[in-house]
Amino acid sequence: MLRRGRFGRPMDAMASEYTSSMQVDVRLFSPVVQINAAHTVMLAERKIISPQDAAAILRALCDLHAKGIKALELRPELEDIHMAVEEFVVATTSEEVGGKLHTAKSRNDQVAAAIRVALRLEILEIRAALLELVGSLTALAEKNVSTVMPGYTHLQIAQPTTFAHHLAAHAWAFIRDLERLELVYVQANSSPMGACALAGTSFPVDPIRVARLLGFKRLSENTMDAVGSRDFALHTMAALAILMSDLSRLAEELVLWSSAEFDTIEMPDEFSSTSSIMPQKKNPVVAEIARAKAGRVGGALLAALTVMKALPQSYSLDLQELTPMLWDAVDQTKSSVRIMSRAIGAIKPKVENMRRRAEESFAVATELADTLVRDAGLAFRDAHSVVGRMVASATEAGKSPKDLSFEDLQSACREVLNRDIQLSEVKFRPALNLERCVEARALPGAPAPKAMRAQINLLKREMKIRKKLVRAEKRAILKAEEKLLKLARRMSR
Amino acid sequence: MLRRGRFGRPMDAMASEYTSSMQVDVRLFSPVVQINAAHTVMLAERKIISPQDAAAILRALCDLHAKGIKALELRPELEDIHMAVEEFVVATTSEEVGGKLHTAKSRNDQVAAAIRVALRLEILEIRAALLELVGSLTALAEKNVSTVMPGYTHLQIAQPTTFAHHLAAHAWAFIRDLERLELVYVQANSSPMGACALAGTSFPVDPIRVARLLGFKRLSENTMDAVGSRDFALHTMAALAILMSDLSRLAEELVLWSSAEFDTIEMPDEFSSTSSIMPQKKNPVVAEIARAKAGRVGGALLAALTVMKALPQSYSLDLQELTPMLWDAVDQTKSSVRIMSRAIGAIKPKVENMRRRAEESFAVATELADTLVRDAGLAFRDAHSVVGRMVASATEAGKSPKDLSFEDLQSACREVLNRDIQLSEVKFRPALNLERCVEARALPGAPAPKAMRAQINLLKREMKIRKKLVRAEKRAILKAEEKLLKLARRMSR
Amino acid sequence: MLRRGRFGRPMDAMASEYTSSMQVDVRLFSPVVQINAAHTVMLAERKIISPQDAAAILRALCDLHAKGIKALELRPELEDIHMAVEEFVVATTSEEVGGKLHTAKSRNDQVAAAIRVALRLEILEIRAALLELVGSLTALAEKNVSTVMPGYTHLQIAQPTTFAHHLAAHAWAFIRDLERLELVYVQANSSPMGACALAGTSFPVDPIRVARLLGFKRLSENTMDAVGSRDFALHTMAALAILMSDLSRLAEELVLWSSAEFDTIEMPDEFSSTSSIMPQKKNPVVAEIARAKAGRVGGALLAALTVMKALPQSYSLDLQELTPMLWDAVDQTKSSVRIMSRAIGAIKPKVENMRRRAEESFAVATELADTLVRDAGLAFRDAHSVVGRMVASATEAGKSPKDLSFEDLQSACREVLNRDIQLSEVKFRPALNLERCVEARALPGAPAPKAMRAQINLLKREMKIRKKLVRAEKRAILKAEEKLLKLARRMSR
Amino acid sequence: MLRRGRFGRPMDAMASEYTSSMQVDVRLFSPVVQINAAHTVMLAERKIISPQDAAAILRALCDLHAKGIKALELRPELEDIHMAVEEFVVATTSEEVGGKLHTAKSRNDQVAAAIRVALRLEILEIRAALLELVGSLTALAEKNVSTVMPGYTHLQIAQPTTFAHHLAAHAWAFIRDLERLELVYVQANSSPMGACALAGTSFPVDPIRVARLLGFKRLSENTMDAVGSRDFALHTMAALAILMSDLSRLAEELVLWSSAEFDTIEMPDEFSSTSSIMPQKKNPVVAEIARAKAGRVGGALLAALTVMKALPQSYSLDLQELTPMLWDAVDQTKSSVRIMSRAIGAIKPKVENMRRRAEESFAVATELADTLVRDAGLAFRDAHSVVGRMVASATEAGKSPKDLSFEDLQSACREVLNRDIQLSEVKFRPALNLERCVEARALPGAPAPKAMRAQINLLKREMKIRKKLVRAEKRAILKAEEKLLKLARRMSR
Repeated sequence: MLRRGRFGRPMDAMASEYTSSMQVDVRLFSPVVQINAAHTVMLAERKIISPQDAAAILRALCDLHAKGIKALELRPELEDIHMAVEEFVVATTSEEVGGKLHTAKSRNDQVAAAIRVALRLEILEIRAALLELVGSLTALAEKNVSTVMPGYTHLQIAQPTTFAHHLAAHAWAFIRDLERLELVYVQANSSPMGACALAGTSFPVDPIRVARLLGFKRLSENTMDAVGSRDFALHTMAALAILMSDLSRLAEELVLWSSAEFDTIEMPDEFSSTSSIMPQKKNPVVAEIARAKAGRVGGALLAALTVMKALPQSYSLDLQELTPMLWDAVDQTKSSVRIMSRAIGAIKPKVENMRRRAEESFAVATELADTLVRDAGLAFRDAHSVVGRMVASATEAGKSPKDLSFEDLQSACREVLNRDIQLSEVKFRPALNLERCVEARALPGAPAPKAMRAQINLLKREMKIRKKLVRAEKRAILKAEEKLLKLARRMSR
Repeated sequence: MLRRGRFGRPMDAMASEYTSSMQVDVRLFSPVVQINAAHTVMLAERKIISPQDAAAILRALCDLHAKGIKALELRPELEDIHMAVEEFVVATTSEEVGGKLHTAKSRNDQVAAAIRVALRLEILEIRAALLELVGSLTALAEKNVSTVMPGYTHLQIAQPTTFAHHLAAHAWAFIRDLERLELVYVQANSSPMGACALAGTSFPVDPIRVARLLGFKRLSENTMDAVGSRDFALHTMAALAILMSDLSRLAEELVLWSSAEFDTIEMPDEFSSTSSIMPQKKNPVVAEIARAKAGRVGGALLAALTVMKALPQSYSLDLQELTPMLWDAVDQTKSSVRIMSRAIGAIKPKVENMRRRAEESFAVATELADTLVRDAGLAFRDAHSVVGRMVASATEAGKSPKDLSFEDLQSACREVLNRDIQLSEVKFRPALNLERCVEARALPGAPAPKAMRAQINLLKREMKIRKKLVRAEKRAILKAEEKLLKLARRMSR
Repeated sequence: MLRRGRFGRPMDAMASEYTSSMQVDVRLFSPVVQINAAHTVMLAERKIISPQDAAAILRALCDLHAKGIKALELRPELEDIHMAVEEFVVATTSEEVGGKLHTAKSRNDQVAAAIRVALRLEILEIRAALLELVGSLTALAEKNVSTVMPGYTHLQIAQPTTFAHHLAAHAWAFIRDLERLELVYVQANSSPMGACALAGTSFPVDPIRVARLLGFKRLSENTMDAVGSRDFALHTMAALAILMSDLSRLAEELVLWSSAEFDTIEMPDEFSSTSSIMPQKKNPVVAEIARAKAGRVGGALLAALTVMKALPQSYSLDLQELTPMLWDAVDQTKSSVRIMSRAIGAIKPKVENMRRRAEESFAVATELADTLVRDAGLAFRDAHSVVGRMVASATEAGKSPKDLSFEDLQSACREVLNRDIQLSEVKFRPALNLERCVEARALPGAPAPKAMRAQINLLKREMKIRKKLVRAEKRAILKAEEKLLKLARRMSR
Repeated sequence: MLRRGRFGRPMDAMASEYTSSMQVDVRLFSPVVQINAAHTVMLAERKIISPQDAAAILRALCDLHAKGIKALELRPELEDIHMAVEEFVVATTSEEVGGKLHTAKSRNDQVAAAIRVALRLEILEIRAALLELVGSLTALAEKNVSTVMPGYTHLQIAQPTTFAHHLAAHAWAFIRDLERLELVYVQANSSPMGACALAGTSFPVDPIRVARLLGFKRLSENTMDAVGSRDFALHTMAALAILMSDLSRLAEELVLWSSAEFDTIEMPDEFSSTSSIMPQKKNPVVAEIARAKAGRVGGALLAALTVMKALPQSYSLDLQELTPMLWDAVDQTKSSVRIMSRAIGAIKPKVENMRRRAEESFAVATELADTLVRDAGLAFRDAHSVVGRMVASATEAGKSPKDLSFEDLQSACREVLNRDIQLSEVKFRPALNLERCVEARALPGAPAPKAMRAQINLLKREMKIRKKLVRAEKRAILKAEEKLLKLARRMSR
């Protein structure tokens, strides 16, 4: 259709397939129909086309909307879904009437608008899924505020903490991911319609009306920027790549904890596979794939950054190549967050193993040193050295933490500081008690059960606020869609 | 110092150099001194250490602050700046007094805090530089609202626009970059102090007090998350990578426009180099480097995403490796934005060349087709075909746009639609006029001079609001710093 | 099938879909059938299974081979194509006989083998396509050894060269890409069969026999490495990413040259699209997409590097996630090279425009300076300054290169060196002649027509050798395949 | 110096610093001096400059070589080391004589040549370091051919293997890295000298002579390609990124094995740090940093690919920005490989722990199933099910592998297959024996001690051949360097 006036020959078949976006465009079907409907409504309202022509076009569009994408012929030589929809309208009405559909718009603004319409909903879905995941983590944490486990640094056992505290650490990262996605949403939810090819139009269009009909909250401030920018896509992919980075860290821990060596969670059969005949061998495949997907989403971001690098204004076809990367990042993230949310909801902590590991290590050593500072007046660095020496001797002698005696401490003190320590023996034993040690860390954010309950309440409040926002934003765009279709149907009569 | 209690042998020299962050830590000097001061003030206020000990430590810190980093011995075997500062305090006071400095804190929370303190200021500087750049673009645009130039898609001349419109397209992308960096700032400006190694502390510390003394606006909600997360760094680098992507597009255009083929701007000598003897050859080196730096910053982001992938909780030394990438992204972006702001301020548009290129092309064809739709009642697709045919014939006949006659149009119409067109000849000529064509695109965001002036006012308003925000945030942290030092000096007496 | 002995419950449907590789595995169908056939042949030859069982299994496999993949049920709960093929064999034979197929092998070695079998052929196809592209460039170069055009540095016109010289510059980069892909092929063409899950097997298998039957040239030297390594995939993707980087540079030039500003090639209609109504506007869409694909392939490499980072031995399911990235890199590269080869074959250089651009610039300035060094005894830096001054004055006076006189040179000399130049006037004029200037650059590798013809011959020789290698390697694997199927059919009787 | 003829004003100070490569160029000092010397020798030999001028220039260069880089003024406004060296020669000789140094060359070919000269040596150093690492792994493997440990898939214990087998798996990956670096070396070791700015020169230079004097093995086949290509740098970085990916996997295992949960190696104090007071806590910092560096090198590659994307011919300053990424990749890789080689040489396997973990798991289950296939005639899938059932029952009953009885097997067989198994009881017990199980896997590449010894011999042979090659290549370039300096000194008299 486009080549009629200008070109003698059709496009080379291989070139046509290479440059067509038809296959990927499938997910833009509904947005493209909506955009055409909103545009037509506005054209009629502004008397740029006649009510009769508008009615005929809207009839065709409503018809197409009802029939779905299978009504379209998706030949690659039509280049993209935008031309396929226009062709349908022309075929259903006439060359003359259907030929008016593209008045005062261009594929350039329409492509950008369609991606944004489709993306808005995806971001909301990912935010909803992320809230589910935070919910799963919070629910599991709530059951485990008193489940003592070792806290790690450098993958070495460092200090006792609780399973709840550990799970909540991940939850807060996801809350920040949500916060980022909220800005992503705001920036994506802006209408480029009216920008046409790049310089706007001399028709008296009403871009604000079109934006409202499509449920957009903002309007592009510059028509060249409207068609030539994709930073909203880069921004989305960046937020998703960071989210997946956070998710991969949780996934890694599921893999570690499922190993025979850690053995601190039970991954249920439904989320495991077996590839061999060993019964202890339940492969944590969901976590493995989620971990790997972080690479995939990061790669998509990088690919997109490379595509955009040094691209002059305004629209170039390179931008088309960026869109599948965006959808891949969206799809991989969405499914990963959803499945991890289910997996977290299903894992069973092996509470005794967690506690035993914490107990067998010298995880309480810090607390003992702190006690020496607090109750025996030692400088922190001295206390650090005394306890270090005590534990070194214990290890050499094959003693485990529970075998330690007050005398061991005194003798270490003599070795290091050349004097006895001034500590009442009653203070010594409790310092080695895991539960006491955890309970003593009672400031906001720390693992003490009481503090954790407060932290969980904070998480719940965050979820509540953010869920409400997701719901409100979803409602707004669905309502706009419904209203638009109703209006289109009314005007098509 | 740290190894005293635990290890028999010193670290292998090569390993020590390999794992030390000393060299990179130099930029953390001032933040580390501040954090130690704030922490000591709080320890004294909460009576965890005595006023005398606090005074001695604060004296040492104030002394160090005054002398600067050259007072420190930066041997790699000290591992990092944190140990170097502590060593200085111990050396200045005594093992006993200085040894109390590290009470109720850990390198883990201190490292995270120091990076955030240093980063906050950098983000503000980049935002300020970006506002300068937007200012340069806006000022240049303001002088060129009537400078007609070709608008491009696919690097093909598409429609006439103005230099102002083109420059503003870039400005809006930078405004969105600013918006992103504002959230980056909010997320980064959160205090991890009090988290200690990963599980908080049993000392009755006051993390809110420390946060306030350091000018932080938020507090970490979970101590493990506080020391083990670096999504604030990924977030920063992602925002910078997108910014640099936007900048590389502007840089590419400077390179193109400086070429003999485009020849639409004059890059002043101060921003050019010559490597040969041709006088027309002024290499646009600033733009070339800025374009390339986009790759560097994107690479830093990707490196950081890879480092974080699948890292279990909480702190691992891998996080240390991420910090130089963060600073590199910050430094490269800051200098690129600054130099591009100066370069934009210095370029001279070759106004006649811009206009001539627009004139020689058939950039007005769209407007003519729109006129046929508006005034002759053609469907858009028919108008598109008619004008296409007319221009194809003109090209074959070697005619340039200004040679086109009304008869050419009619004859194209007859060929394509088999009939004459119903258009008054008076409507024909103006449709081919560049200025009229630009003026007709008068909706918000479009290039018409009047619309552009409104757009420029919008840009100025955006700048004003955002500059105010930067100033307020900068003032807040500088005030906190000043207040902290004053307090430290007072308490050190 | 696998879960029968071990698990009580089936996999969660969402988890099953999330972790299944079935969809991507489709392209492994033929390799998997071959591997099973080769393995069965060997099992029978080593008497690990009976001739009767082998015959039944091979019958099923030959049947499957004939019917194609549509004979398989590709349900995600079967996990992958490997299980689907085994299920088919079991269904066609019996649980008892078909159950023997997996004797002494594992999915771990089979997956690695199947990817390598499929990849080998793809690498050969890409090498063949690349040779086509070098062929197109060489053919076009051959026609243009005397086509003078400006040579650029910094996108500034620097010195005259020829179109042939420019095209050949790209060709040599592709030759190096070929060289890299040849090593990729050698490393990929190595058999992991016999490694089983990770530790080999206690059955008396013959891995060398299986490797030969499958046309492999090498054998994995360590069974754990055989199943746990994917550096052959990273290596492939790295080579392809570099290739696409080279290709994107050629694509960029097609975009530039097609612009109205450069206007030095005509991109034929078959490889262009139009999105608007301007006749001069033929969008170079093939080149744009090829340029963008470089980002995509680079992103795939990065994603894969991230997936592999820090993955412990041996097989983890993360490796499965890497495979689609490999195929995407392969597919995108293959189609890009092929289409660019066709596009290069179709472009028409605008010879006069090329020459005019060279002529209007001061591209010959270097040659003039060299003449001053050679024939007037000036030091190079002095000659550089004299000519620079001459051209600066000419530009100011609005003179073009052909207006330059000997007196202009003398006066510049006096200004810069304070003396007259000792140059016979007969040497002056020829130094400004474009053709002479090009002809004077006659060393190997330089643009003089004679040298270029020699260079083209070198390119042809490279192509000839490398084509022969591709053909030989392709023949070897196709022959092995044919032989294997014949043997399988024979043994199945 | 360069701007004299052409520009009125000096470069903006900020722009000058932004675009100067002076700081990074420091490592090019010696290559640049060599290249200038080789070029001058050739100019004299070809009588392009007089023996006297050559002598003066060579005297200056020899002097500079002796004094080292501190003799140069590295002001950023000189742009780069190339200009700094030329300035030194001019200052030492005279404007007239020194001004001849740059005859028939350009910074464009000289930059490319200098990077290649510096890079060659670095690649050889990395190859040498990698051979050390393979040596460390092989030596450790040699001591542990009988050290039984669990083999893992999905980080789940799968089958028994040996520590030697596991270490050798890594060694082979590094052998392939070496193979890749050998091609990298060949491609990098090619001389661009003679290409000048991009189009060669009309002076009768002898590029082959210059290449030989500099120890290059190849010559660029096209002068534009010579100055405009950097695929040799991308190729290097790609090979290093893959190498670092391989290294990060080994590093990850050191981290895992050092954990309290795995506890299968002892990382010596010299390669550990402590950040806390727990004696069991020796942080595996070297491995952590090595793991993270994989991200850094991958990021450098990606950055470089992005820089090169869509860069038109020939030289652009963007290429300058790529060089620091190359050196960073080189430096990070070199130090990582070296330190990991030392760390591997120092770790102590905890042999009993390795064995105990293998013993407590059901790692032998595969071997038992294979026995059922071999000696009891079961189909593999049936054997798999029977053993799976047996182990599931044992686990439920709390039995460990050594508690399993023949009756347990029979009862599982009855449950699954509804019949007794036909296996002599004497075959049962040995199937559960770890050592026997390992010994039975005796094919090349498998863990049986005898096979492992053969594999180690193969590794040693590979090392020997490749060491020889590194030595020969290093000798060749060092000899060329020595010879060049001798010749320069002789000609300078």
